[in-house]
Amino acid sequence: MSTTQIRTNGVDTDTLFATLDAVRLQPALARFQFRASTRWLSGTHNRTTIGGFYGAGAEQAREQEFSIDADHPTVLVGDDHAPTPAEHLLQALGACLMSGLANIAAARGIELGEVTAELEGDIDLLGIFGLDDGVRNGFQEIRVTFHVAGDADAEQLARLVEQARRRSAVYDVLTHGVPVRILSASS
Amino acid sequence: MSTTQIRTNGVDTDTLFATLDAVRLQPALARFQFRASTRWLSGTHNRTTIGGFYGAGAEQAREQEFSIDADHPTVLVGDDHAPTPAEHLLQALGACLMSGLANIAAARGIELGEVTAELEGDIDLLGIFGLDDGVRNGFQEIRVTFHVAGDADAEQLARLVEQARRRSAVYDVLTHGVPVRILSASS
Repeated sequence: MSTTQIRTNGVDTDTLFATLDAVRLQPALARFQFRASTRWLSGTHNRTTIGGFYGAGAEQAREQEFSIDADHPTVLVGDDHAPTPAEHLLQALGACLMSGLANIAAARGIELGEVTAELEGDIDLLGIFGLDDGVRNGFQEIRVTFHVAGDADAEQLARLVEQARRRSAVYDVLTHGVPVRILSASS
Repeated sequence: MSTTQIRTNGVDTDTLFATLDAVRLQPALARFQFRASTRWLSGTHNRTTIGGFYGAGAEQAREQEFSIDADHPTVLVGDDHAPTPAEHLLQALGACLMSGLANIAAARGIELGEVTAELEGDIDLLGIFGLDDGVRNGFQEIRVTFHVAGDADAEQLARLVEQARRRSAVYDVLTHGVPVRILSASS
């Protein structure tokens, strides 16, 4: 007789908890290295491919390689083939908070309904354009507004958002920064 | 007689310089707001749509709306429908540096050949998992290795990478951080 796999919010919570137990016993399993490869196409249009990564103690292959394009819009002298890198950054943040929220809700036994997050980022391009040294290159502020429906009261739903923030990799990097080393190997 | 549009590396440099001149005269044109909307699908799988934005003094519509998915891989109890948010973050960085590099090369009259950037990010998931308070949630370090071919010497090509770094919105945000406000509106 096979056991029934229980999924809450599409999350296999038994496997999730078993994974956490395995990592408790062998913390080195938690060391991951993610990778991406960006290729210039034309102008501001470029394509990033994402495939294997290291984690859970081994190289991990994927069944498919993912491909993501970026470009600038025409008002910024691009061809608008794809979102800007700054918009991709907002996407990474929204996605990270959302994935975490769904896992946390499942672990707490809260069934989610519709969940959305609206992101906005203010940026003054005088920085990037090199026209004002007093203006930073990046976003000046990012705002995220969550709308969470589920079978719990408003306070419990708000706590899901708060816990997602506390355990988000992308939120941590965006708010605290990360060392970035850039090497140039001319060819 | 029509004028010939000169494009270097696919960049319309006349329009690029005219845009910079316009912003010098009217700096408020450089104020932009980018937006993204993330919707939960199932488990760690979610979809972000990216459409209009504010910039150059007006709301800017796009001909098409862009859609980007994220998920966790099976080893992290996801369904591997799409890259992880952490990989999307690497993509945003690679794309930002690459778009900048192409514009800078065009402005300097350097014709590019093949240009690629390999990105790696180290992350210890003990932080996200809540198993070690001494481990951060996000990447511990990100490395980017550029391979730049073009009709200039190695030093000039390396300077393109350095200037792309100096004028990158995403690099600035990742290395210096940005205020992020998260609001929760239960529904």
